Amino acid sequence: VSAFAPTNIALIKYWGKRNQELNLPITNSLSFALPVGTTTSLSSHQDHDVVTLNGTLQGHDSAFTKRLVNFVNKFRPHNSFLKIDTVNQIPTAAGLASSASGFAALTLAMNELFNWKRSPHELSIIARQGSGSACRSLFSGFVEWHKGSQDNGEDSFAEPLNILWPEFKMGLWIFSEKEKPIDSRKAMQQTVATSPLFSAWPEIVASDLAKMRQALIEHNFSQVGEIAEHNALSMHAMMMGATPPILYWLKESVEAMHQVWRLRKTGVEVYFTMDAGPNLKLIYLEETKPLLQRLLPHANLILF
Amino acid sequence: VSAFAPTNIALIKYWGKRNQELNLPITNSLSFALPVGTTTSLSSHQDHDVVTLNGTLQGHDSAFTKRLVNFVNKFRPHNSFLKIDTVNQIPTAAGLASSASGFAALTLAMNELFNWKRSPHELSIIARQGSGSACRSLFSGFVEWHKGSQDNGEDSFAEPLNILWPEFKMGLWIFSEKEKPIDSRKAMQQTVATSPLFSAWPEIVASDLAKMRQALIEHNFSQVGEIAEHNALSMHAMMMGATPPILYWLKESVEAMHQVWRLRKTGVEVYFTMDAGPNLKLIYLEETKPLLQRLLPHANLILF
Repeated sequence: VSAFAPTNIALIKYWGKRNQELNLPITNSLSFALPVGTTTSLSSHQDHDVVTLNGTLQGHDSAFTKRLVNFVNKFRPHNSFLKIDTVNQIPTAAGLASSASGFAALTLAMNELFNWKRSPHELSIIARQGSGSACRSLFSGFVEWHKGSQDNGEDSFAEPLNILWPEFKMGLWIFSEKEKPIDSRKAMQQTVATSPLFSAWPEIVASDLAKMRQALIEHNFSQVGEIAEHNALSMHAMMMGATPPILYWLKESVEAMHQVWRLRKTGVEVYFTMDAGPNLKLIYLEETKPLLQRLLPHANLILF
Repeated sequence: VSAFAPTNIALIKYWGKRNQELNLPITNSLSFALPVGTTTSLSSHQDHDVVTLNGTLQGHDSAFTKRLVNFVNKFRPHNSFLKIDTVNQIPTAAGLASSASGFAALTLAMNELFNWKRSPHELSIIARQGSGSACRSLFSGFVEWHKGSQDNGEDSFAEPLNILWPEFKMGLWIFSEKEKPIDSRKAMQQTVATSPLFSAWPEIVASDLAKMRQALIEHNFSQVGEIAEHNALSMHAMMMGATPPILYWLKESVEAMHQVWRLRKTGVEVYFTMDAGPNLKLIYLEETKPLLQRLLPHANLILF
């Protein structure tokens, strides 16, 4: 069996867990699904598990294999072995949310292979246990992840928002496809444990989220863009306040932010968000795409 | 008469006022004086004020003249006019603390010209009213500015710390001498008024300050450096959380931070701090200076 799940990019970020094991977040978050993602093929296998990533066999002891097998072990029948083939359309572990689409696609494939017939809501709760933001990659469009309050995580799931806005687009501006110097799991823990700025985060999210939902309903594009930038910058700010500081930005990241702001001053409606990595995600309306392609003629720009 | 005051660079930053008019801060701060600064010459003049900056006559309506005259008006005898010649050894308004040394030198010159014979403590209170951090530029070495609690600011002054550490050095790594896109006075206001991250700042300063004093007493260089970086990054982080966001960093700033961190990984003991501008201030011991000059062969590097 084979299943596809989209990459999702958060407009309101998920940063900080209340439970490490179950990936239970401290706050809600809100994302937008890209038209690219991960395709995972799953088949039964004899004797042992086999894991490939983008066609390349992954060693038993690799971090990638371990994380997948660990997840699959929680849900598969005893004494079953699997061949898991993961194909990412976007680079792995460069802050481009490949683990989200990966665990979502794997969950969907398991649902088929094991004939679970579970609802997207239930699958969202399962995918979350592989990678928190994977729960959002079960759906397309705008998606909210409800943090929940139960200790077992059974009320921590994602659901699509009832918003139709086909002109809304996000693109990728990639400066590095290298693995991150510190993975987001560790970076979250370090932020929550050591950054005094984290105390303000739950209120920032609550405020940004309320404004974001309203702006999405109204299709108020500039408001959506401003809140997204504010939320992303606040997340990166918190990390910089950690000990030791966490700075995902490269010189290209900062130059790109300034470039986005300069474009806006000239009337081009483009905004950005950033995740745990140096790359920018551009936020724009479909009509602006040709202009961006002309004004930002970079080889590493992927506009959808 | 002529007076010199040193540039001071804060190791624990001053950011946020409780009184805009009197420049009364929300927190204490702690600085180190550089061996460069501002020399201000003052003489009586007939009919009207004359202001020069680095030898160039400044117009009556220029922001520079207005700010100086406004300050001088608070303290000079009625119907006296002045020629004020300011010479900065470092660029004006590029986050290099020229207003601090400028108002300190002007205060010292007024003390002489008007024969006030006031103590450094009293002069610190006067200089503060020109530019908050000017109160710290009355002294050399390590200086703490006590925020005070009175409404009239009479207990908000700076004093030198009793720490002798001649091997301790700070240098400048300058990427832009252009005027800042937003001056620190406005940036402070915008941060306090709109950044949810500011709520954590008073506690960050209290904690960093206690650790910094102890580290200075012990001449614990790496501890001083780490706290200084943490404090500077926290200040910039708060600004990024403002609406609209404030980002003084240029691509060169971020590249330089990474370079400092890379150097430390190879055993070179160098740290940085940053103020309201894109430039870095390097923190190092005298013995490391030749190494830095070799490893960072930049024309815009000034090591003392």
